[in-house]
Amino acid sequence: MSMDVTFLGTGSAYPSPTRGASAVALRCEGACWLFDCGEGTQTQFMKSQLKAGRITKIFITHLHGDHFFGLPGLLCTISLQSSPAASKQPMEIFGPVGLRNFIWKTMELSRSELTFPYVVHELVPTEDQCPAGELRDFSHRDGADRPPKEIQGRTILLDSVEGSYVLVNDEQFLVKAFRLFHRIPSFGFSVAEKERPGRLNAQKLKDLGVPPGPAYGKLKNGVTVVLENGVKVSPQDVLEKPIPGRKICILGDCSGVVGDEGVKLCFEADLLVHEATLDDTHMDKAKEYGHSTPRMAAEFAKLCRVKKLVLTHFSQRYKPPLVSGEGEADDIRELKKQAESVLDFQEVTLAEDFMVIDIPKKKTISIT
Amino acid sequence: MSMDVTFLGTGSAYPSPTRGASAVALRCEGACWLFDCGEGTQTQFMKSQLKAGRITKIFITHLHGDHFFGLPGLLCTISLQSSPAASKQPMEIFGPVGLRNFIWKTMELSRSELTFPYVVHELVPTEDQCPAGELRDFSHRDGADRPPKEIQGRTILLDSVEGSYVLVNDEQFLVKAFRLFHRIPSFGFSVAEKERPGRLNAQKLKDLGVPPGPAYGKLKNGVTVVLENGVKVSPQDVLEKPIPGRKICILGDCSGVVGDEGVKLCFEADLLVHEATLDDTHMDKAKEYGHSTPRMAAEFAKLCRVKKLVLTHFSQRYKPPLVSGEGEADDIRELKKQAESVLDFQEVTLAEDFMVIDIPKKKTISIT
Repeated sequence: MSMDVTFLGTGSAYPSPTRGASAVALRCEGACWLFDCGEGTQTQFMKSQLKAGRITKIFITHLHGDHFFGLPGLLCTISLQSSPAASKQPMEIFGPVGLRNFIWKTMELSRSELTFPYVVHELVPTEDQCPAGELRDFSHRDGADRPPKEIQGRTILLDSVEGSYVLVNDEQFLVKAFRLFHRIPSFGFSVAEKERPGRLNAQKLKDLGVPPGPAYGKLKNGVTVVLENGVKVSPQDVLEKPIPGRKICILGDCSGVVGDEGVKLCFEADLLVHEATLDDTHMDKAKEYGHSTPRMAAEFAKLCRVKKLVLTHFSQRYKPPLVSGEGEADDIRELKKQAESVLDFQEVTLAEDFMVIDIPKKKTISIT
Repeated sequence: MSMDVTFLGTGSAYPSPTRGASAVALRCEGACWLFDCGEGTQTQFMKSQLKAGRITKIFITHLHGDHFFGLPGLLCTISLQSSPAASKQPMEIFGPVGLRNFIWKTMELSRSELTFPYVVHELVPTEDQCPAGELRDFSHRDGADRPPKEIQGRTILLDSVEGSYVLVNDEQFLVKAFRLFHRIPSFGFSVAEKERPGRLNAQKLKDLGVPPGPAYGKLKNGVTVVLENGVKVSPQDVLEKPIPGRKICILGDCSGVVGDEGVKLCFEADLLVHEATLDDTHMDKAKEYGHSTPRMAAEFAKLCRVKKLVLTHFSQRYKPPLVSGEGEADDIRELKKQAESVLDFQEVTLAEDFMVIDIPKKKTISIT
């Protein structure tokens, strides 16, 4: 299964012509999951190789405008461009408490009736995710009727034992959210592909005398079969080792994680997308505003032993390399160097709008 | 006083890479008034020669997403980039009832505290501005506290005698709104520059023996002066004819005007900006969705004897001329031809993003 990540917006605070507001798309076999949706995300989709109509899930890290002001427009445009199909699975939207009411309000006021079914699942943050006194209760409703296509979503509380929020748990993926510390509560998302059964080993099947046909399918699915000659063949006799799943972790704005769960969930991730709003020389300012620098991101990546670190959410002062001269003030290349020095010069990637990162399948390991 | 109009978004329904969502800026001597603010307007500002920080007034024609979803982001970015100045005049925002609550809600949820003062004046539409039963009451409040920088705005009712809404009436401008018919209530805006006193005629001053100095200023300001020799000189003796003001009319989405006031207010306008969402071959569909075609726009322009008609708000199917071949399906050039045929081949302009139209000062007409 092919899997890749496209950066649709890599700038902080507001969209600009050189960096869109926050948005990252994860594509698996044609389906698309969107992480954050700053203003202009729908236009960034059109400029990319992706199709917004393929979005099946949206995850919002936190409710600062540069991360979700593009959501109403995106939903309306998908609705305008899609043919109503009753059998369509609802689009799932995950985000902090308050998001559902925001969608209601914008849809009601703009008289937009979405033609596709959707559901908003709200995450309830904890007090230690932001400075004292900054947590506000956005759980109230305004009395607006639920829009016709909205299905009642879940209110997801922190699992106090696990320290995380379970968002998706299906055949293919386990997606969890974990807590970050920011000016307002923010979340990180860990998308873990599930382990898949190993391949059937043709030589072993032949050696054991398993005839091609339904027996192959049963063994692949973990069922023991009995051959005509009475010999029992169990899956572990003929299957290669299971193929480990890939793991992609995408964090919202933060100056750190809350609790241990972030490290556990990001451990050995194939890809970690971490903000680095300001460079290390502005670390105090970054922390004051609940943000990270390359050093802070790299230290987290090191702790988690991630395989690839991508920095994003840069202050708009850091122009993409193609439009900024090397060595001038606010040179984005400095941020790369700062992160790499922490990671013992392991290569770090600086996100740019429309950059695509392929996450290759893990290799099968032979039993022999 | 220089005056020009910049089209920041000329597409309907949603923003695209070739046409932004609705936004038109009127610039007078450095100050900037914005008409509609579709998603991405702030980025369009950055790509243009204009500065969003110069905006002093915003007018929203109606509450469809492609006309106002860019407003929260624009306000937040202006706030981020402006230095708080206590003496700053409040930004005035005009739009249909519901807009104030929308701004409150988005600012509250995104925890955005605007640093500049602003005021939202809401227009109350009438029932005949949309199909029966489509008018909704958005006057309710959600109980959110008014944001600190918001000054209490006016609720502006239709003046039943005039048939219009008076929005601005100062030394320089008279701005009125008038009613349009659309799927939801929509408005047009007439910006009329006030007549300015004519120039002092140097020859006449000399002939009458008016000495240069304070007397010139008095006469220019309409005050009669008495010379040392006892001769009375009145302004009309030495002033050339007053300089007529310019008039710019910008209409929201519509399939027509409601009442007579639209025609009166647009009469002999120097510039009429009118939507033409679909071409004449789709007139039935255009009317069904409350929109206009080039013929409909041109007929209104003809009735009003406007001096220049600019069509905008094109369906995204009509690409700008530079990216579409002549004569192919949905050729935008057809829309120009359709409008010009109604206007007896007087030239009609098709708006494109970033097009600037200069509105020259009227000429002084000599008394002689």
